Amino acid sequence: MITAGIIGGAGYTAGELLRILLRHPEVKIDFIFSTSQAGSPISSIHQDLLGETDIHFSGNINRDVEVVFLCLGHGNSIEFLNKNPFSATTKVIDLSTDYRMNSEDHSFVYGLPEFRKEEIKKAQFIANPGCFATAISLAILPLAGEKLLQDELHINAVTGATGAGTSLSATTHFTWRDNNFSAYKEFEHQHLNEIGQSVKVLQPEHTSEINFIPNRGNFSRGIFATSYTRFSGTIEDAKKIYKEYYKDAAFTFVVDEEIHLKQVVNTNKCLINLKKLNNNLLITSAIDNLLKGASGQAVQNMNLMFGLAEDTGLRLKANYF
Amino acid sequence: MITAGIIGGAGYTAGELLRILLRHPEVKIDFIFSTSQAGSPISSIHQDLLGETDIHFSGNINRDVEVVFLCLGHGNSIEFLNKNPFSATTKVIDLSTDYRMNSEDHSFVYGLPEFRKEEIKKAQFIANPGCFATAISLAILPLAGEKLLQDELHINAVTGATGAGTSLSATTHFTWRDNNFSAYKEFEHQHLNEIGQSVKVLQPEHTSEINFIPNRGNFSRGIFATSYTRFSGTIEDAKKIYKEYYKDAAFTFVVDEEIHLKQVVNTNKCLINLKKLNNNLLITSAIDNLLKGASGQAVQNMNLMFGLAEDTGLRLKANYF
Amino acid sequence: MITAGIIGGAGYTAGELLRILLRHPEVKIDFIFSTSQAGSPISSIHQDLLGETDIHFSGNINRDVEVVFLCLGHGNSIEFLNKNPFSATTKVIDLSTDYRMNSEDHSFVYGLPEFRKEEIKKAQFIANPGCFATAISLAILPLAGEKLLQDELHINAVTGATGAGTSLSATTHFTWRDNNFSAYKEFEHQHLNEIGQSVKVLQPEHTSEINFIPNRGNFSRGIFATSYTRFSGTIEDAKKIYKEYYKDAAFTFVVDEEIHLKQVVNTNKCLINLKKLNNNLLITSAIDNLLKGASGQAVQNMNLMFGLAEDTGLRLKANYF
Amino acid sequence: MITAGIIGGAGYTAGELLRILLRHPEVKIDFIFSTSQAGSPISSIHQDLLGETDIHFSGNINRDVEVVFLCLGHGNSIEFLNKNPFSATTKVIDLSTDYRMNSEDHSFVYGLPEFRKEEIKKAQFIANPGCFATAISLAILPLAGEKLLQDELHINAVTGATGAGTSLSATTHFTWRDNNFSAYKEFEHQHLNEIGQSVKVLQPEHTSEINFIPNRGNFSRGIFATSYTRFSGTIEDAKKIYKEYYKDAAFTFVVDEEIHLKQVVNTNKCLINLKKLNNNLLITSAIDNLLKGASGQAVQNMNLMFGLAEDTGLRLKANYF
Repeated sequence: MITAGIIGGAGYTAGELLRILLRHPEVKIDFIFSTSQAGSPISSIHQDLLGETDIHFSGNINRDVEVVFLCLGHGNSIEFLNKNPFSATTKVIDLSTDYRMNSEDHSFVYGLPEFRKEEIKKAQFIANPGCFATAISLAILPLAGEKLLQDELHINAVTGATGAGTSLSATTHFTWRDNNFSAYKEFEHQHLNEIGQSVKVLQPEHTSEINFIPNRGNFSRGIFATSYTRFSGTIEDAKKIYKEYYKDAAFTFVVDEEIHLKQVVNTNKCLINLKKLNNNLLITSAIDNLLKGASGQAVQNMNLMFGLAEDTGLRLKANYF
Repeated sequence: MITAGIIGGAGYTAGELLRILLRHPEVKIDFIFSTSQAGSPISSIHQDLLGETDIHFSGNINRDVEVVFLCLGHGNSIEFLNKNPFSATTKVIDLSTDYRMNSEDHSFVYGLPEFRKEEIKKAQFIANPGCFATAISLAILPLAGEKLLQDELHINAVTGATGAGTSLSATTHFTWRDNNFSAYKEFEHQHLNEIGQSVKVLQPEHTSEINFIPNRGNFSRGIFATSYTRFSGTIEDAKKIYKEYYKDAAFTFVVDEEIHLKQVVNTNKCLINLKKLNNNLLITSAIDNLLKGASGQAVQNMNLMFGLAEDTGLRLKANYF
Repeated sequence: MITAGIIGGAGYTAGELLRILLRHPEVKIDFIFSTSQAGSPISSIHQDLLGETDIHFSGNINRDVEVVFLCLGHGNSIEFLNKNPFSATTKVIDLSTDYRMNSEDHSFVYGLPEFRKEEIKKAQFIANPGCFATAISLAILPLAGEKLLQDELHINAVTGATGAGTSLSATTHFTWRDNNFSAYKEFEHQHLNEIGQSVKVLQPEHTSEINFIPNRGNFSRGIFATSYTRFSGTIEDAKKIYKEYYKDAAFTFVVDEEIHLKQVVNTNKCLINLKKLNNNLLITSAIDNLLKGASGQAVQNMNLMFGLAEDTGLRLKANYF
Repeated sequence: MITAGIIGGAGYTAGELLRILLRHPEVKIDFIFSTSQAGSPISSIHQDLLGETDIHFSGNINRDVEVVFLCLGHGNSIEFLNKNPFSATTKVIDLSTDYRMNSEDHSFVYGLPEFRKEEIKKAQFIANPGCFATAISLAILPLAGEKLLQDELHINAVTGATGAGTSLSATTHFTWRDNNFSAYKEFEHQHLNEIGQSVKVLQPEHTSEINFIPNRGNFSRGIFATSYTRFSGTIEDAKKIYKEYYKDAAFTFVVDEEIHLKQVVNTNKCLINLKKLNNNLLITSAIDNLLKGASGQAVQNMNLMFGLAEDTGLRLKANYF
């Protein structure tokens, strides 16, 4: 059994990690570190776990665990690792933005398995991608992989309220969000950095703008994205490229049917649909922001790092309704 | 034009008052007092009013307004009035719990028009009823009025998230409340006091328990209540009693059809449906908690106090969908 | 009092018309024609009207009413008017798509008051705009009016379930739509025709594509749209253009604050916010699809046609929560 | 591997069965019989399964499967089994109401594991309980088991829209149900029969009324129930009785914390909370109507019948958000 630790156990991504790892056949949770909750049962925060487990949050860290997941606020992982070094062999999977941009200062691998599977298998340190970045990268990287991006990208995506984190805020108050819709950080969302970085790896000469409008939806989980760009080929060309790109993907499927968000909610899947319209290729993609967009992908990375089948512990039943 | 002031302008009930009074043909809003928002346009908080009005929150109170509405937190109205006396003729409508229980210490009239219309017309001070208290009192007072309560009452009601106020809390976080349901304060809700007081006025000898379970629904507005108690008469007897009781009511209608919540949302109406089942009379009632359960009823009381038609400014279009 | 008839009274737009006209101070509803519901009270379908009115659906048409609203399915208005001629002076407001495209075959005026106010005042026949067309036209016509469209338009909009009509369908089943999101008719929505027609009137030389992706949101009412296109001016230039264009608009407001959908739900308003980002002007617009996008706008047109104040009967209280 | 067949594969309960059985380590799905869908991939109906399976609906039945699940409309199972006899050893689990009432005409065991575990282990034919019946029986059977029911029971429960089945109906249209609430079949719900039957088994002398008001909630999945009745003991007495009754239950947990619906959605769990208030014991219970209330419980029964660990294939990750 792989011993695992979780740092920062009270948030959404930590909760989803817990839900997955408690059912993972090859993992034993060693500790869940939370300064604010130390000593409390994890079911006091993640209340669906009542009756399932007696694990408690801990104020202590075991530096010799085989894998540690960092579920800290963005900006806090670097500081945490500096203050709390792990053993030389502990694998680290960071769910924050801290190590997503390549740099000479660190050796974290960008943990998008469809893009970096071989590097992930050999990595000790993983920077787990952002949720929007996952949904959008999976939509556009196959084109970049064939150097077929030839113009601007136009992307619109909507995320559920869990995307805003557990803190209470005006836009996550039920009375505000219920039956509401709004856009935010238009053209300026922080995930554009990691998306652009991955595009550049595959098609360095692409310099056109990636226009991205994020939206707040009145649902709890999931990201639904539409991306389009000029494309000279046929729809058959496009499907061939995408199906080839994802032929070994464990969770990303290119489907002929139109898709909708709830097909993927509570799963680690990404569904992708393609349409050729006017001179554009329209790519629709959908993920669960907390799973394929965060904790599910983190476990997928762990599975790859430890040589397990990629879907171990991740064949999750969709909620669907 | 009646000059009106609002004390505590940033909450839900103040917002609804504003929406109504801005369209009320006989009212001129004199000031909206808010210490936290003084100087800001009211549309900075009540953002649907953008484009409709330039009124600003004020840090000053005009003690000579003809009517003042107190939209303060429960417990704060008494203190506020002590520190801020109004003119000898200013009518006061308090939306908090502070003056709802009759007492020798004050002369506030309980402002449920279906129950106390004549007193309200002559009153200077009104204690506006609670939202659950309104929905439930309207369901059971006709029975008490005929001294037909003969056993325990069994009441279950569900309220929307606006019932919990504007403050952010765990149970009003969208991710918690969306698609969720829960009960709270079972048998112990504070509105039982005012309900019991009104029952006692009509049927002093009734001493059986009023059992009330409030619930949190995953919607924003409205209260839907089912109340039942032993009843020896026929359904025709019951309908006759209720239709007689509400024959002059401006907003409360006894209907033969089964009812659902959205029939009354965004209106000042109360719909009531009756069924005789086994030996029980089942009374189903529905209101908008912020209108008939708060600000709409406050304006209805104001209309009565100033001799206006009871529905002036209150013929609101239901949202319905 | 203006006598009004409604043809096809059982759908959403007819229901909203009824809700407005019943409260309109200058209108008397003469008949509500419905073959399927003739003889039933309108409150049997529009159940929020219980207690408010005793009007019944009628199987007869009064051809001498002063104004008639056609709330028929798309494609049925032409046939209906052919079979059922009205008096020579009856004004006709058609809510379907049938007469929206200009043609030598008819003399209907496109009823977007912000665009055609003077023609509407003099018109006898009005083609009421589509809901998406209203939200999008109001976002882009000020640019076209200054001949400033210089490149493609990129538009993404989301509509509530009422946009799909009252018929039951897979995508309006609660269990499908609740907490779901999806796109449809990408680049091919039928409202592109009327949008394009209006743009061409103002800026005939604009030939670039109008790319529009409609989405199904998991809410009941409203349209929220983001539109962007290349723009060389400053944000101040843009605001000046838009504020000038809408300076006489009764319901369309250009605001400096970011907007969200519920600010306009249950009102006849359109809110517009502008941002300059990269080289693009981003225009965000929001309306209620059943009001400004259908029945509210129809009454606004009626007000203009009869010389009434444009907002008569339309100063609706937002639901907001 | 246990070979399994599903009869009537297009509905909600069949879909949930499929989702569970496809992941069940000891089951091989032999066929999914659907006359309406024969030949189509199951992912054409249960669209979240896209990418996961290529199984198709079949027009043929294999009479030699080891277990068959009947997911037919209520009233159709008896007729189906008469026309389609299975092998002498095939175990049958019927999800309809057809065999839930004990009778000399059949030998189906009522499949509530917490109530009939030993009989289920030995049974060949199982009548799977109704969803409301499960939530309510689990709330009250421990009291009946101790012969402590001494008066009427007062039960209020709310169910999600999946409780109404896949057919489109007025009350499952999104625009009706969204943000709405209503009661139905008050005191007359058909599940009262099976609840009463189980109570009678444990406490035959209990003759007081079981008053039950079902409600339609504006969520998709789950049942939340509050039940109360007169109780002379202390809260400690009650907890002891309930914890003893459920000490071997695989999925039913008596917890000290107040509960809410989403703790159990997408799981096979039932959570129960107890309070003593006035002279009443209040029992709050929550289940997922499609899992513990239908397909999950069916698989739980199958596990018991085949000697598997009761939770095999049923340790489902809650959706929670």
